[in-house]
Amino acid sequence: MAPRTAPQVSSATTLLFFVLVILAFFPGIFHFLWSFPLSLLFPSPHHHHPDTSSHQNSHDPDYYHSPEPHIMWTQKQFTLPSRARGSYLITDQVLKELPEIRNYKVGLLNLFVQHTSCALSLNENWDEDVRADMSDTLDRIVPEAGPKGEALYRHDAEGPDDLPAHVKSALIGASVTIPIRDGKLALGTWQGIWALEFRTAKHTRKVVATIQGEKA
Amino acid sequence: MAPRTAPQVSSATTLLFFVLVILAFFPGIFHFLWSFPLSLLFPSPHHHHPDTSSHQNSHDPDYYHSPEPHIMWTQKQFTLPSRARGSYLITDQVLKELPEIRNYKVGLLNLFVQHTSCALSLNENWDEDVRADMSDTLDRIVPEAGPKGEALYRHDAEGPDDLPAHVKSALIGASVTIPIRDGKLALGTWQGIWALEFRTAKHTRKVVATIQGEKA
Amino acid sequence: MAPRTAPQVSSATTLLFFVLVILAFFPGIFHFLWSFPLSLLFPSPHHHHPDTSSHQNSHDPDYYHSPEPHIMWTQKQFTLPSRARGSYLITDQVLKELPEIRNYKVGLLNLFVQHTSCALSLNENWDEDVRADMSDTLDRIVPEAGPKGEALYRHDAEGPDDLPAHVKSALIGASVTIPIRDGKLALGTWQGIWALEFRTAKHTRKVVATIQGEKA
Repeated sequence: MAPRTAPQVSSATTLLFFVLVILAFFPGIFHFLWSFPLSLLFPSPHHHHPDTSSHQNSHDPDYYHSPEPHIMWTQKQFTLPSRARGSYLITDQVLKELPEIRNYKVGLLNLFVQHTSCALSLNENWDEDVRADMSDTLDRIVPEAGPKGEALYRHDAEGPDDLPAHVKSALIGASVTIPIRDGKLALGTWQGIWALEFRTAKHTRKVVATIQGEKA
Repeated sequence: MAPRTAPQVSSATTLLFFVLVILAFFPGIFHFLWSFPLSLLFPSPHHHHPDTSSHQNSHDPDYYHSPEPHIMWTQKQFTLPSRARGSYLITDQVLKELPEIRNYKVGLLNLFVQHTSCALSLNENWDEDVRADMSDTLDRIVPEAGPKGEALYRHDAEGPDDLPAHVKSALIGASVTIPIRDGKLALGTWQGIWALEFRTAKHTRKVVATIQGEKA
Repeated sequence: MAPRTAPQVSSATTLLFFVLVILAFFPGIFHFLWSFPLSLLFPSPHHHHPDTSSHQNSHDPDYYHSPEPHIMWTQKQFTLPSRARGSYLITDQVLKELPEIRNYKVGLLNLFVQHTSCALSLNENWDEDVRADMSDTLDRIVPEAGPKGEALYRHDAEGPDDLPAHVKSALIGASVTIPIRDGKLALGTWQGIWALEFRTAKHTRKVVATIQGEKA
């Protein structure tokens, strides 16, 4: 079966052939072998990524710099339960609606409510008194009527609570942006995601969640 | 030096050689052949993309998950018309200045005003009374003087309306972030983009628009 | 059919083999050779990026459109100096903590404070009176007690300044997003980054900075 003559040549060629094919499948090895003599001659950070080498603090656990891009976008819409005026902690619902957060090594979550008489915010996640105080304080800042009960607003066709709701929405904001790190929201210990409903009657609100970042 | 006989061996080697070279050019085939026996033994979602397989709801029209990244950034600056104190709906101008939004399958638009006595917001897009009420309400929240006309602010060299303008700017914010979906801003039915001018006299304001996302 | 003696054939095979292996290592050459005859037949802008050709206004210095994506993410955490109630200009510290901004041709910086009784904002960067007036004005908008000294809040276990701090944090916001252009923050002439501390006693605050964009 084996060739009669030139077995040594054939073996050497076959070996070379397999080595090259293996290198073809694993270009990292090829690059290592290729740059290895150079790295001996110039023991510098030449074979590091030029953008990361200058600022990378590999000893600093708080630091992340993308080694290479594997950028990923996720976008979905979900609905908050129908609720009347008040401040609500929605961190658990957000995490349940967005299991994709786990897939991100680093990223940003944007939550955007598609309405103009409610808001999203970040605030204290423990004492529900804080949430009740928040709604009451915003009522004092943007009251439905003047101190003697006088009308304050032109726009009153949708009820006395409607225009104050629009002002509160502008003050607090329709969206929050939260960093993601190692598959988790990088919230502080006492930070939670809040939905604030400013209308007196129950309303159902739609949220668009957009996640972007690098794959874990 | 070359082998004299062994044509059968040479044919088999040549065949193997071409198969391997073809595999080297198309690593997907190699990965398929490599993982095919394993996938027979473990008929699991191993050969699906781990990030998309678990959470993809292909039946859900509200859900988008990037199949592969074609990330694109657009940034430009534009100027808002010179305007005096008031709240202005600028959705139409933003869409006209940014036809690039159409090119994005999914993304985020950030609008950032480069000034500290005006603001950007999202609010009601129909009744102009809401915009007039907004400006008046912010004047009550951050008045130019106290209830008996007394001075409230150290910083008054630029006029009595200047410091209140800075406070309103901090309260409402210099930027808005709006999700993009299927080439359109994912605004709610009643949501519009507002520019709020807090100075009494006319001012011209510059906006930096940054769009990022995946190509349509 | 098989060659009996075939040294020439063997040499040709070896040459072909090396050419193919070299092509396998440098797929760019393969793609060039593959598409070269087509590019002679159709000398069109087919090998340009379709999204950039249509909207690029190379004469407009205010316009940037990514020619091709080299997306990069940077994320790090830093600590603001311990400070008592007040408004502080932190632009210089932010730029010192984030030399990576220089590496971005276009991008966005998100600063996110991981606490609920302070805030980040963008505001006037020159007159420190503006910062003192800001803190005083927010105290008037969200006072610690009513006009006759009466208690206003349920949540008072952490001191009379705690609940007002949470409300101010919701009004101003925990994060700012700032565009990056040509390695610099695209701030207006008078815009600076502010940290607002709402607690009376000194507090140390952690900020998560997330930068994303295209490499310079």
